[in-house]
Amino acid sequence: MLIKFFIKPRKGVLDPQGRAVAESLKSLGFNDVKDVKVGKYIEVYIEDKEKDKALEEAKEMAKKALVNDLIEDYEIEVVEVR
Amino acid sequence: MLIKFFIKPRKGVLDPQGRAVAESLKSLGFNDVKDVKVGKYIEVYIEDKEKDKALEEAKEMAKKALVNDLIEDYEIEVVEVR
Repeated sequence: MLIKFFIKPRKGVLDPQGRAVAESLKSLGFNDVKDVKVGKYIEVYIEDKEKDKALEEAKEMAKKALVNDLIEDYEIEVVEVR
Repeated sequence: MLIKFFIKPRKGVLDPQGRAVAESLKSLGFNDVKDVKVGKYIEVYIEDKEKDKALEEAKEMAKKALVNDLIEDYEIEVVEVR
């Protein structure tokens, strides 16, 4: 089973990486770039289990280890891997 | 318009971050963790345009600036923001 975490800086929190990427894209000619957010994409492979159990476990992982709740927002996707 | 980039280490490429996260999750009691991949989640907001044009532009951004084609794989999602 695969749990996907999409973690990004919370709105209003300074995102120097995002700003740097935006500047470099514009310097490469991508002039229609308005804003960039840079965050973490984490894939966690776990033993198979019921989806809602996996979701609960994912939230615990986010809270305890993967997400800084003061400055980051996140989304989770649970995917059954065949 | 929002372009989402999901970038991760290519299979077989050393992923020290992923290994470190896997160890820390196990030390926190998440014993069913089998593997972890840590990559980048990037959101790029651009002027509205046709979806296929945005997709072409996104591929160019990935190639020119956002993805290291030697060691990373990526997926793109184009989202119309209301």
